[in-house]
Amino acid sequence: MPRKTAMLPERSPFRSAAQKSEERAAKRYAVLRAAVRMFNERGFHATSLEDVATTLGITKPTIYHYLGNKDQVLLECLTIGLEQLLEAAAATRAEPGTGVDRLRHFLRRYAEINMDDFGRCVIRTGDEVLSRVSVKRYRELKREIDTAMRGLIEEAIADGSIPPLDSKLLAFTLAGALNWPARWHDPQGPQSAKELAEHMVDLLASGFLPR
Amino acid sequence: MPRKTAMLPERSPFRSAAQKSEERAAKRYAVLRAAVRMFNERGFHATSLEDVATTLGITKPTIYHYLGNKDQVLLECLTIGLEQLLEAAAATRAEPGTGVDRLRHFLRRYAEINMDDFGRCVIRTGDEVLSRVSVKRYRELKREIDTAMRGLIEEAIADGSIPPLDSKLLAFTLAGALNWPARWHDPQGPQSAKELAEHMVDLLASGFLPR
Repeated sequence: MPRKTAMLPERSPFRSAAQKSEERAAKRYAVLRAAVRMFNERGFHATSLEDVATTLGITKPTIYHYLGNKDQVLLECLTIGLEQLLEAAAATRAEPGTGVDRLRHFLRRYAEINMDDFGRCVIRTGDEVLSRVSVKRYRELKREIDTAMRGLIEEAIADGSIPPLDSKLLAFTLAGALNWPARWHDPQGPQSAKELAEHMVDLLASGFLPR
Repeated sequence: MPRKTAMLPERSPFRSAAQKSEERAAKRYAVLRAAVRMFNERGFHATSLEDVATTLGITKPTIYHYLGNKDQVLLECLTIGLEQLLEAAAATRAEPGTGVDRLRHFLRRYAEINMDDFGRCVIRTGDEVLSRVSVKRYRELKREIDTAMRGLIEEAIADGSIPPLDSKLLAFTLAGALNWPARWHDPQGPQSAKELAEHMVDLLASGFLPR
């Protein structure tokens, strides 16, 4: 048998380009996670990058190096939240069942993401705090999500699994209901985001009138 | 016939105590209205009392005189919005019909108020911007509104006009959906707040599943 094990390279003290890039991504993510939690807890204006740096045992210039200024840090946080929603919409397309099954699937994921750190920040942060450049990018992503939700509604109408409702109004109504837990759900509380998302989507699906 | 008209007092150049108090209230209200519109448009942090004063042709000390500092101005704005909601809840109790009729009535008013200047500010402003004293008062009022909405739901459950749903979860779900237009409804747009409120409440009542 060939001595394959002997062929394994020794662990080099020099990092490969891939390792460096991975480390860089991990560091960026750690900064963003710390920042987004502080934005959510104290509000964007009351958070300084110095405070964020302190919780990570680094300095403010290190944050500038990896991410840029506070506006850029916020835009990155919002972008992660919005991209999670867009990924959920894309993944929903592969789900089996009828249009309404896929719509409900997406709505549950949408609600869950909005209760997680980055999604929470999307809901809690008014876009008036962003710079003019950032706000443009942010609104584009938001529009994509609105479009995705409206598309799922229209597909459910098209296959007859929901009645021919006003898709724009329904999308806004559902989004509002499922955005709001970002303002009150306590991740340390007794009800998990997953359970809560499920219950809320059931309520919205059935309505409060007797059936 | 007695000459009653001759008995009418001449218009005095001195204002009565009642007139003075009315003028004071009108001035306070004008400041609050200008401030709340600016808070809603630019955000609380980007608004200075100086800007508010300028739009009214007055000076910042005049605002201090009538209302106090920016935190106090915001708390007043939020209090007006929250009190409008509480009044709507109280007025709803006098409405005829079943529990669900009253619930729907309140929900429509709730949505409309949240699209108006002061209600909009309640939704758009995170309580993290308030001082510690103000936030306490604000949260008390918010809790009263939650309680009022939950009470109307429970009365509708009690008289059998809606099924025995989880009243807390339903209240949060409805509130979220009906808060959200504060972030997107354009008062100058084609759909009035009244129409929009009606459509949204219908959607929430019926749900999106076929009936």
